[in-house]
Amino acid sequence: MAVKIFFEEFITGAQRTTTGRTITEADIVLHAGQTGDFYPHHMDAEWCKTQPFKQRIAHGTLIFSVGVGLTAGVINDVAMTYGYERLRFLTPVFINDTITTTITIKEKRDHKKPGFGIVTELLEVYNQHRQLVLVCEHLLLVQKKELHG
Amino acid sequence: MAVKIFFEEFITGAQRTTTGRTITEADIVLHAGQTGDFYPHHMDAEWCKTQPFKQRIAHGTLIFSVGVGLTAGVINDVAMTYGYERLRFLTPVFINDTITTTITIKEKRDHKKPGFGIVTELLEVYNQHRQLVLVCEHLLLVQKKELHG
Amino acid sequence: MAVKIFFEEFITGAQRTTTGRTITEADIVLHAGQTGDFYPHHMDAEWCKTQPFKQRIAHGTLIFSVGVGLTAGVINDVAMTYGYERLRFLTPVFINDTITTTITIKEKRDHKKPGFGIVTELLEVYNQHRQLVLVCEHLLLVQKKELHG
Amino acid sequence: MAVKIFFEEFITGAQRTTTGRTITEADIVLHAGQTGDFYPHHMDAEWCKTQPFKQRIAHGTLIFSVGVGLTAGVINDVAMTYGYERLRFLTPVFINDTITTTITIKEKRDHKKPGFGIVTELLEVYNQHRQLVLVCEHLLLVQKKELHG
Amino acid sequence: MAVKIFFEEFITGAQRTTTGRTITEADIVLHAGQTGDFYPHHMDAEWCKTQPFKQRIAHGTLIFSVGVGLTAGVINDVAMTYGYERLRFLTPVFINDTITTTITIKEKRDHKKPGFGIVTELLEVYNQHRQLVLVCEHLLLVQKKELHG
Amino acid sequence: MAVKIFFEEFITGAQRTTTGRTITEADIVLHAGQTGDFYPHHMDAEWCKTQPFKQRIAHGTLIFSVGVGLTAGVINDVAMTYGYERLRFLTPVFINDTITTTITIKEKRDHKKPGFGIVTELLEVYNQHRQLVLVCEHLLLVQKKELHG
Repeated sequence: MAVKIFFEEFITGAQRTTTGRTITEADIVLHAGQTGDFYPHHMDAEWCKTQPFKQRIAHGTLIFSVGVGLTAGVINDVAMTYGYERLRFLTPVFINDTITTTITIKEKRDHKKPGFGIVTELLEVYNQHRQLVLVCEHLLLVQKKELHG
Repeated sequence: MAVKIFFEEFITGAQRTTTGRTITEADIVLHAGQTGDFYPHHMDAEWCKTQPFKQRIAHGTLIFSVGVGLTAGVINDVAMTYGYERLRFLTPVFINDTITTTITIKEKRDHKKPGFGIVTELLEVYNQHRQLVLVCEHLLLVQKKELHG
Repeated sequence: MAVKIFFEEFITGAQRTTTGRTITEADIVLHAGQTGDFYPHHMDAEWCKTQPFKQRIAHGTLIFSVGVGLTAGVINDVAMTYGYERLRFLTPVFINDTITTTITIKEKRDHKKPGFGIVTELLEVYNQHRQLVLVCEHLLLVQKKELHG
Repeated sequence: MAVKIFFEEFITGAQRTTTGRTITEADIVLHAGQTGDFYPHHMDAEWCKTQPFKQRIAHGTLIFSVGVGLTAGVINDVAMTYGYERLRFLTPVFINDTITTTITIKEKRDHKKPGFGIVTELLEVYNQHRQLVLVCEHLLLVQKKELHG
Repeated sequence: MAVKIFFEEFITGAQRTTTGRTITEADIVLHAGQTGDFYPHHMDAEWCKTQPFKQRIAHGTLIFSVGVGLTAGVINDVAMTYGYERLRFLTPVFINDTITTTITIKEKRDHKKPGFGIVTELLEVYNQHRQLVLVCEHLLLVQKKELHG
Repeated sequence: MAVKIFFEEFITGAQRTTTGRTITEADIVLHAGQTGDFYPHHMDAEWCKTQPFKQRIAHGTLIFSVGVGLTAGVINDVAMTYGYERLRFLTPVFINDTITTTITIKEKRDHKKPGFGIVTELLEVYNQHRQLVLVCEHLLLVQKKELHG
C-alpha cells in the first residue's frame, strides 16, 4: 500500500510500535551466509560457552536489518531514506529473543534542497525483557506539501 | 584467526580494501526474506520499469550488511563494535553490481572508560564503476596496551 | 497491524489488488529446496528446452504460496482461514514473470457454528501480461458482530 | 524417473504413504521469507505464548507445499495437475512436528477433452500423533490409453 | 521408498543416469553461505572477467554435493556410504550449466567385516555439452544376503 | 586476501586448525534443499528415534562441504585443487555438534606437468568431543618457484 505523507504532516513525538519477531538460529545462519561473517561469536556454540555471554549472539547487522525491516509496511511515496545516525548496539540479542521496534518522530528540519525537509525518526529495538538492544536515528528526506500547493 | 591489535597500534590513515562481491538477484530475494521488506523497489521488476531507475535496487540494509561483512576476516580480540555514524546511501546498487569496501583509520580518541579508546574506521563501499554507493563510520572500542603494560 | 472486521462488515463485490512480486530463479530454487520437488520442469533448463514451454516453470505450490502471501498485511483478529476451494493453475509462470493478486469478496453465508459466518474471497493471480495464472476461493471463518453486540 | 501411467491404470482405492518430514523452525523462517507472511502466529514466539496454542504455528501454505512435495518422486509423463479442491487445515502444525502424506485414489471420471480423464487423489497429511492436519483433493488430468491404442 | 538390495544383487557394469539439474547463481550464493567460501572465483563477477574463465565458477563442493544428491531416491536399507575415492574436478561448472550424474557399478569386493562387501560405484557428473565435470568413486558397505539366508 | 605460496614453501608436517562451526538444524534443512537429499536420516526426527542413532544426522556432503569451507581464508594464487582422496565418514554429526578442521601438510611430490608439484593436505574434521568425524586428503596442484626463478 502506498500513501503520500508530506513533511508538514509528520508530527514530532508521534510514536508507533511494530509487531514482534523472534530471532531464530536459522536467521543467524542465513545472515552469516548472506554477509560472510562467520565469526565464532555467531557460529560456534562451543567457543561461546567459554565467553562471558555463554551463548551465540546475533550479528549487529542482522538486528539492524530486521529492526528496520519490521517498520516496513505502508510505502510513503514522497519520502526516501537519507541515512542513519548514532547506531548503537546496547544489549546482545540471543537465539530465541523476540525483538520489536518503536519509531518516534524526533525532529523535523529544513533541507538545503528547496521543497524538502529532513524528518528524524528515532528507532528503538527492544527485546522481550523490554531491554533496549539497538538504537539509531533514521533520516528521511521528505517532500513538502508547498511543492504541490 | 584471532589477533590482538591494541589502540596504540592503530595508525591513522592506514587503509585496506576487501575482495569484491557481486550482489545477485538471489541476495535481494534472501534479504527481503530475512527482513520482511518486500517493497516493490526491490521485488517488482515491472513496477521498477516505470520508475527513474528502471530496475530493481538492493535494500540499503543489504548493502550495509554485505559491505560490513566483507571486512570480516581476522578477529581482533581486544576490539568490539561500539556503533556506526553517518551512514549514507549515495548511489543505488543494482542486480549484478559488484561492491568492494575500503576501510580507512580515520580518527582515534580516548574513551571515558579507563584503558580504552575509540577508533573510527571510515567504511566506503564502491561499485564496479568506482562510484561510492555507501559510506559510514564504524566506531570500535579498543583496549589500550597500557592496561597490559 | 491488527484490526477487527466482523462478518457483517464484509461487502460482497469489494475488491483490492496487492503490490506485485517478480518470481525469480532464486524463488524456484528455494521452493524446490523447501518442498523436495526437483522435477525437471522446475530444475532442468536443458530438458525444458525440449518441452512445449521451452523454459523452466514455477511450482504450482510456489505460485499459490506467494499469491496468498501477497495478500498478507493487516491482521483481522476475528477471522481465520477455513480452507481453499477450486484452486486451478491456468497459465504457467516463468522465471522473471511478475504476479499480482486481486481479492474480491465473492460470497457470504452463515456457518453452523453460532455467531460465525463464512466469507468467500475470490483470489485471482495475474502475470504482467494480465493473464490469469491461478485462481482459487479462500474461505474465511469470521465472527459476527452480534456476538459482541 | 519417468513412467507412463494411463487413466485406465489408476485403481480406485489404491493407497500409498510417503516418508516423513519434520517441520523445523528453519522451514517456517524460510517460508515466511518466501511468501512475505510474517504474521506473529508464525514469527513471534512471545506473542504466541499469549494465544490459545502457546507456540508458533506453521503457515498453512507451508504444510500444503511440503505435504504435496512429499508425494513427488516418480514423474508420470501422461498426467498433469488440474487443480485442488476442498483444501482444509484441520490441526495446527508446530515446530518439530513430523508430517507424512497418504495418497488415496478416490475417484475417476471422464473429462470433456476427448482421450482424457480426471483422477481425484485424496491427500491426507498426518502429524506424528496420527492427527489429520491437512486434507485436500488433487485433480489430475490423465491421458487415456485408448489414445495410444 | 526403501528397498533391500544385497551385495550379491549388485551387477558389475550396471548403469543408471539421473535427471538433470541446472546450477543457478542462487545455488552458488547459497553454497557460499553454507560453507563460508566466498572466494572471488565464485562471488566476484568483475574479478572473474580478468581471469581465464571470464565468469564465476561453481564451488567444487557444490558440484560434488549436488552430483551425489542427484543419485538419491530409493533408500537401500542394507547399504551405507563407506567413503569416496579419487574425487577429481575436471571441467569448471558455470552458472546455468546443467549437470547429470551417471552411476556405474564398477567393482565388488569382500570386506573384513564378515557378511559384508564393498561395492564401488563410479560417479560421473556431466554438463550439457557431455563434458565430464567431476568424477569419483563411491564406496558402499553392503550386507551380504548369506547373513539372512 | 591473496598470497603466493610455492611448492617449495610447503613444509611437510606443518599444521593449522580452523575456528569451529556449530552444525545447526537450519544447515541440514538448507543442505537437503540444495542437494535434494531428503532421506529420513536427515529430515524425519520421528523415524530417527527408531534407529540406532536416535536422532537426525547431518548429510556426509554437508560435513565435507563445511569442513572444507572452514579452511577457506587466504587465497593462494599459485595453487589449485586437484582432487580429494580417501574421504571417510567416521562418526555421525548430530544437530548442535560443533566441528573444527585440522589441516596437516602430509606429503609433497612432483607432478608430470613440468614446474608443478602435488601437495597432499590431510584434512581431519573433529567434533566438540574431539572425535574424528571425517577425514580426507586434499590434493593441491602447486606451482614451483623455479618457474619464476
